[in-house]
Amino acid sequence: MENVVMFEEMPELKDPILIEGLPGVGNVGKIAADHLAEKLNAKKFASIYSQHFPPQVTLNSDCVAGLASSELYYVKGEKNDLVFLLGDFQGMSAEGQFSLAEEIVTLAISMNVSKVFTLGGYGIGTVVEEPRVLGAVSNAAMIPSLKENGVTFVPGEPSAGIAGASGLILGMCGIKKIDAACLMGETSGYFVDHKSSVVLLKVLMKILSIDVDTKELDERSQQMDEFTTKIKEIAEDQSKGHIGYYG
Amino acid sequence: MENVVMFEEMPELKDPILIEGLPGVGNVGKIAADHLAEKLNAKKFASIYSQHFPPQVTLNSDCVAGLASSELYYVKGEKNDLVFLLGDFQGMSAEGQFSLAEEIVTLAISMNVSKVFTLGGYGIGTVVEEPRVLGAVSNAAMIPSLKENGVTFVPGEPSAGIAGASGLILGMCGIKKIDAACLMGETSGYFVDHKSSVVLLKVLMKILSIDVDTKELDERSQQMDEFTTKIKEIAEDQSKGHIGYYG
Amino acid sequence: MENVVMFEEMPELKDPILIEGLPGVGNVGKIAADHLAEKLNAKKFASIYSQHFPPQVTLNSDCVAGLASSELYYVKGEKNDLVFLLGDFQGMSAEGQFSLAEEIVTLAISMNVSKVFTLGGYGIGTVVEEPRVLGAVSNAAMIPSLKENGVTFVPGEPSAGIAGASGLILGMCGIKKIDAACLMGETSGYFVDHKSSVVLLKVLMKILSIDVDTKELDERSQQMDEFTTKIKEIAEDQSKGHIGYYG
Amino acid sequence: MENVVMFEEMPELKDPILIEGLPGVGNVGKIAADHLAEKLNAKKFASIYSQHFPPQVTLNSDCVAGLASSELYYVKGEKNDLVFLLGDFQGMSAEGQFSLAEEIVTLAISMNVSKVFTLGGYGIGTVVEEPRVLGAVSNAAMIPSLKENGVTFVPGEPSAGIAGASGLILGMCGIKKIDAACLMGETSGYFVDHKSSVVLLKVLMKILSIDVDTKELDERSQQMDEFTTKIKEIAEDQSKGHIGYYG
Repeated sequence: MENVVMFEEMPELKDPILIEGLPGVGNVGKIAADHLAEKLNAKKFASIYSQHFPPQVTLNSDCVAGLASSELYYVKGEKNDLVFLLGDFQGMSAEGQFSLAEEIVTLAISMNVSKVFTLGGYGIGTVVEEPRVLGAVSNAAMIPSLKENGVTFVPGEPSAGIAGASGLILGMCGIKKIDAACLMGETSGYFVDHKSSVVLLKVLMKILSIDVDTKELDERSQQMDEFTTKIKEIAEDQSKGHIGYYG
Repeated sequence: MENVVMFEEMPELKDPILIEGLPGVGNVGKIAADHLAEKLNAKKFASIYSQHFPPQVTLNSDCVAGLASSELYYVKGEKNDLVFLLGDFQGMSAEGQFSLAEEIVTLAISMNVSKVFTLGGYGIGTVVEEPRVLGAVSNAAMIPSLKENGVTFVPGEPSAGIAGASGLILGMCGIKKIDAACLMGETSGYFVDHKSSVVLLKVLMKILSIDVDTKELDERSQQMDEFTTKIKEIAEDQSKGHIGYYG
Repeated sequence: MENVVMFEEMPELKDPILIEGLPGVGNVGKIAADHLAEKLNAKKFASIYSQHFPPQVTLNSDCVAGLASSELYYVKGEKNDLVFLLGDFQGMSAEGQFSLAEEIVTLAISMNVSKVFTLGGYGIGTVVEEPRVLGAVSNAAMIPSLKENGVTFVPGEPSAGIAGASGLILGMCGIKKIDAACLMGETSGYFVDHKSSVVLLKVLMKILSIDVDTKELDERSQQMDEFTTKIKEIAEDQSKGHIGYYG
Repeated sequence: MENVVMFEEMPELKDPILIEGLPGVGNVGKIAADHLAEKLNAKKFASIYSQHFPPQVTLNSDCVAGLASSELYYVKGEKNDLVFLLGDFQGMSAEGQFSLAEEIVTLAISMNVSKVFTLGGYGIGTVVEEPRVLGAVSNAAMIPSLKENGVTFVPGEPSAGIAGASGLILGMCGIKKIDAACLMGETSGYFVDHKSSVVLLKVLMKILSIDVDTKELDERSQQMDEFTTKIKEIAEDQSKGHIGYYG
């Protein structure tokens, strides 16, 4: 098979914008995209199966099995319809990642997608108090308006490049002359980072001129803040000689 | 080649049901399927060779070499003929597993298979006194009658999904709208588990309304019970301070 | 490319027999086949290149580079012409080994090869005083005449099967109904084994009713005998308490 | 995709010579080729993308993303135009290296390339005072003129063969009857070796009858000499009992 796209519906889409949010560093991109799609009541219209996903099925609560897949959802918009690429998997090999990214970009072209946003995390290895949203683009002309909406561009960063679906879809859009940007929420990279996701989502919503409730994400983000604050206090206490257990 | 199917015979099959029993956790599925096929005098009609199997031949007692393969057997039934997928191998890579599962499902469609049962083990990491048979399906409508025949459905279980041929064939049947169920005998997963196999086989026979002698499996199952009982006694003795050797 | 066969010449071959001797356990098969081809002045007529060989060139004494390849040689015979498959490489992956074996068997069919001998070693893990030549066949009807010529058949042995080119070509010949035998010289498997090669070669020559000088191999074989005898004496001395260095 | 070649321009080339300089041992070949192309103001005319490169994008200083690629540059010459194959990547798997080398040689044929030079390093494991340039060829007739220009030919060396793009392109040119030479600067192989690169470049320029300024490389080379001299002095001091820290 290599990859198979199964359509449940063939929606007519108006000047659609594709938003990719697959698993990755801190799951920052996936959480933001899943939340936005859910709050907009986006509708699933296709599944992508691939021999590059893990060879297994997962079960829903009714014990009905589903092959590993990515899914496409859409929602009608005022100016632009939105298409979401969501899922729990990335290609397991380098060749598989190329193959899947190519499948997506080919799909995007067949749907006349006019713009692509790939969402991800930018792991920096330390706790981030105020995560920024970094950007990378397929076309330098996109930069000024992204900056106005809160995206930070640091020359040559991330210096290690962008790996996986977010990077490859961006790169292939560059070759195909499709305007695409990868938006990356700063994150430690050590845990699932709702705080970074909510910052990323707010920037994305500003870019798209849409607004959804982010209450659940904000709460999770605040819980995380409290947790990391507590961890820090303990660490500081210990460095002052207050060893909890034996003090 | 990728995969090659060699037919020795092209049997005319009446509304056939496919039963898969390849090696896996505790070999629970393989033992059950092999036993049933043998007792029903199922006849081999095709071999599946694949570059995804180990690159080797095995020798029979006459020193005649055979490439690694899976085999298809059939047996005529009253209402449904049965087709068995048996063998000693699974695909060695993820891509190979997908390729082989797709080959099987394509074959099943070409044989007008109306229902598929994939047999496996469900490893739980501890000795199981009374193994249950867990189920997962491609179509929720199958659940009530399977429950009546003794299959247990635990919402979302196995939570890790189902890997390998049993899972992939089930998942691909779902996409192709073929009714399929994976039946999994609970097992520790630490050794070849005839006890779980015989429980699985009895449930399967009830579902298929057939009956074969399971004496050999029952004996093996009982031997295993005695063995695990002995192991437990020794373990309990030791935890009470009765150290066998120096006591 | 996957595999590419480059012909330097298209010899007309009379009822040819294919002899495969690629690297393997103790290089037993390779040494025997190389020696026979050389003594018969077999002529190279084709090279097989493959992406499944190591990605490199080797240099001859003139510093002219050659891609990794297998080579086909032929020699005219009285009743049967002989074709040799020689070289320094086997496929590096399972899929590569299947691909190359299939290429060879397809070539054999296109050359109307009537019989195939694959040569290998049978590693038994201990020094062999009098190596036997074990056989495995694609067709049981070949066994009696092979036995008459000194091939030993041990039911089900090698129990681990036969891996690599020698096994796969044999197995694929079985599927294609070509008479093929794998002849395996017993060997420790720990070093290149000329002694086993010369025994294997003599059996092969008896089967083919040809005779070439094996002087070089006999000498190498004798040197090896002396070497292993010496090793044994030292080992026995030491086990009697005569420790060389401190005695 | 496997590999995709994207042309920005289709230059008309006069009897072109292809020079390959991709990353490798000591980056000797890459540094020499990059320097020559830059000093000659060679113009980029094509990019080669491949699923055999790492699955990622890198960012330029404007945060514009580019897929991993190799690039083709050309420069007009008096007798021969030059084409450079430059880049930061080699194929990540054996199959990928074969695939890419085949792509390049097919491109070379389509551009009527009359001669190919692949540049590399020859790692010898110790510091080299006066690195030589070793050669390997696809055609022995090339050797005399290369020797006149300072290339050393050591029978059968490098005895381990030549791996990667430099070797495979050379080997494939041999099959396609294209004159090709691999020129290898001797290097320790332990660090990026500008000294070896500059020696290699000077030999290449003599062969091509061109001349560019090598000042930057000469300076880097001299720095390296001073560095290795210092390292040696320290090592000699220590071996005489002058242990720096505790002496």
